Amino acid sequence: MLHSITGGITAPQGFTAAGVKAGIKKSGKEDVAVLYSSVPASVAAVFTTNTMAAAPVIVSRRAVETGQAQAIVVNSGCANASTGTQGLVDAQTMAHITASLLDLNDADVVVASTGIIGVNLPMGNIANGIKQAVSKLSRDGHADALQAIMTTDTQPKVCAYEFELDGKMVRIAGMAKGSGMIHPNMATMLGFVTTDAAISPAVLRQALKEAVELSFNMITVDGDTSTNDMVCVLANGLAENAAITTADSPQYNDFTAALRTVCTYLAQQIVRDGEGATKFIEITVQGAESFAMAKQAAMAVAKSPLVKTAFFGEDPNWGRILCAVGYSGVGADPDKTSLSIGKLTIVRAGMGTQVDEDALKKTMSEHDITVTIDLGMGSAVATVWTCDFSYEYVKINGEYHT
Amino acid sequence: MLHSITGGITAPQGFTAAGVKAGIKKSGKEDVAVLYSSVPASVAAVFTTNTMAAAPVIVSRRAVETGQAQAIVVNSGCANASTGTQGLVDAQTMAHITASLLDLNDADVVVASTGIIGVNLPMGNIANGIKQAVSKLSRDGHADALQAIMTTDTQPKVCAYEFELDGKMVRIAGMAKGSGMIHPNMATMLGFVTTDAAISPAVLRQALKEAVELSFNMITVDGDTSTNDMVCVLANGLAENAAITTADSPQYNDFTAALRTVCTYLAQQIVRDGEGATKFIEITVQGAESFAMAKQAAMAVAKSPLVKTAFFGEDPNWGRILCAVGYSGVGADPDKTSLSIGKLTIVRAGMGTQVDEDALKKTMSEHDITVTIDLGMGSAVATVWTCDFSYEYVKINGEYHT
Repeated sequence: MLHSITGGITAPQGFTAAGVKAGIKKSGKEDVAVLYSSVPASVAAVFTTNTMAAAPVIVSRRAVETGQAQAIVVNSGCANASTGTQGLVDAQTMAHITASLLDLNDADVVVASTGIIGVNLPMGNIANGIKQAVSKLSRDGHADALQAIMTTDTQPKVCAYEFELDGKMVRIAGMAKGSGMIHPNMATMLGFVTTDAAISPAVLRQALKEAVELSFNMITVDGDTSTNDMVCVLANGLAENAAITTADSPQYNDFTAALRTVCTYLAQQIVRDGEGATKFIEITVQGAESFAMAKQAAMAVAKSPLVKTAFFGEDPNWGRILCAVGYSGVGADPDKTSLSIGKLTIVRAGMGTQVDEDALKKTMSEHDITVTIDLGMGSAVATVWTCDFSYEYVKINGEYHT
Repeated sequence: MLHSITGGITAPQGFTAAGVKAGIKKSGKEDVAVLYSSVPASVAAVFTTNTMAAAPVIVSRRAVETGQAQAIVVNSGCANASTGTQGLVDAQTMAHITASLLDLNDADVVVASTGIIGVNLPMGNIANGIKQAVSKLSRDGHADALQAIMTTDTQPKVCAYEFELDGKMVRIAGMAKGSGMIHPNMATMLGFVTTDAAISPAVLRQALKEAVELSFNMITVDGDTSTNDMVCVLANGLAENAAITTADSPQYNDFTAALRTVCTYLAQQIVRDGEGATKFIEITVQGAESFAMAKQAAMAVAKSPLVKTAFFGEDPNWGRILCAVGYSGVGADPDKTSLSIGKLTIVRAGMGTQVDEDALKKTMSEHDITVTIDLGMGSAVATVWTCDFSYEYVKINGEYHT
């Protein structure tokens, strides 16, 4: 159904982008990005549930209420969080500068920031950066835009696909940043999705919510839900499919499946690039009474520093996994619980299987590792993704500020 | 009121102890301890809330129901957790061997284990160890007993005090182990308290609950609530004070204050010796609507890997503290929240104070650091204690098993 295509975030028709060096990041790398749709687009977004939400989150929450937007402006290097009234003025000013240059209303511009918390934006640099970026908007600008949204990321996170909808070829693309302070709830780090599908704002909102629930909301790097998390999708309709205006249609299902593919790919890329990560760990909890319970147990395992350091050390200390399930609050019964790592069953209904130590060590030495926990209580399943906890994580986060 | 005394866990009258090398720990160090009261004692205990509770927890829960006990047997090197039916038989056998040698009923013996999860106890070593320990019971055995309950601990954790109650001199002493998998809930790692005070089991239970709530339950090292947590107090009455039989008395208050002092001291020692810890961090949340809310916010900060690595790096990245308060679930309002580190006010009612960077760096370089967060929502206060997250934590936990 879906075919992978090139062209990054500007692969869908009508989108242009740019990324420029505005002098906000100490490293001197790209730090301001603008993404633009040549025609008004349906917009939907999900935001952090952190009550200390950053100024750009507050400004963008308002902007997307209308269901329509045409540009996104992003800076890295400064989160504009914990910055009080000045922060709100600055975020609003970012939208205003962008809107003026593109001849839009302020409310047509979504604003996002990422970087250090508690520092005000250098508005001179921001203004110059936005001006420069707008003047450079192009279909080829996707790579620079991608660079400009990154902070501690070591890898760019981007994908683009095309698929058929109503006999029309539709394109959908996404880019994301994030590798620390990752424990999304309602939304994650920064994720931007563009599509030329025609879809009404209300239905787009529902599709995004469904897609995020099973992708960005199923990952954790360090259990910290950021102040700046945001996933935003723009759908400009240039593919000329019959507009999707209801969730009760095969077209809605096809579109949401494509959106989920984009979101899952980006979410997994974030985990793979988790700060200091040396492992990619998929944790599935099955046999739960509900999805929520399955997710709660899986997340307890995914967040446990003891589990994560054991994976880093390739140490088959599986008792720590059961311990985390035990304190997760789902009421797991030891006598019903089973555990597998990779293809090796280690505990079956509470009893150790005396698994071969060498086989287990070999499994732990892989880069991609699956963990399956069966609670033996019901039939619900949830899968979450996380990474290990390494020396490098400590290094990165002990030294980020200075 | 309280005077510090020597003599460790056997400082109160009528208590003897021993610790021996039974060959359970790979290091060859002491790994079986027995603690004995020459007369029957009131007993109270709190246990882990982890539903994967270890076999010794299940056996000891039953033992303390009678309100009376006379001995505690402990092994380190193997947690006897996730060991199914065999584990229960083994834990019960530990009690039985100890009881036989001391001419007690099985139910007079509390059993505790700590060490690796998912491995059965080497019962030959255990049996020999208990025999050897019982034969060596003495008032001087406190230091060996203390050694025998340790695992990754680098420091012994012990204290002893005397205080006057009803004109009688009463002694109270405690010892504890624990430095990883520390996030107690209802109880913590292993903590044992002895006293020669006379107090009824029901009232002792209440006193322990109150003391633990404000001590062991207020610490976290890594957010992992162990399968084996237990705090147990024996009160044998040899001080001959008029027995405390109600919580509505000055004697109850004096005793509980002493017990809380012991528990707080041990809890703080556990944090100071947290795996890889280089800092001791006291986090107070005030201005909350309730104690539970204050504790929830403080614990979110104390558990955040980003906050903990920042302290390790002596990096004044205080935005991470506010971020953790924001996702803690207490509904903190950024415009009402204030933050101090040491004596430096960094945020006052949501506004940064442009604190002097050098002064802040100096404060972050101290070993003991206090963090105060005012939510501006009410008058409740809670204080929790934690440590930082270092390279050493990752090293210890990546390599513990092998």
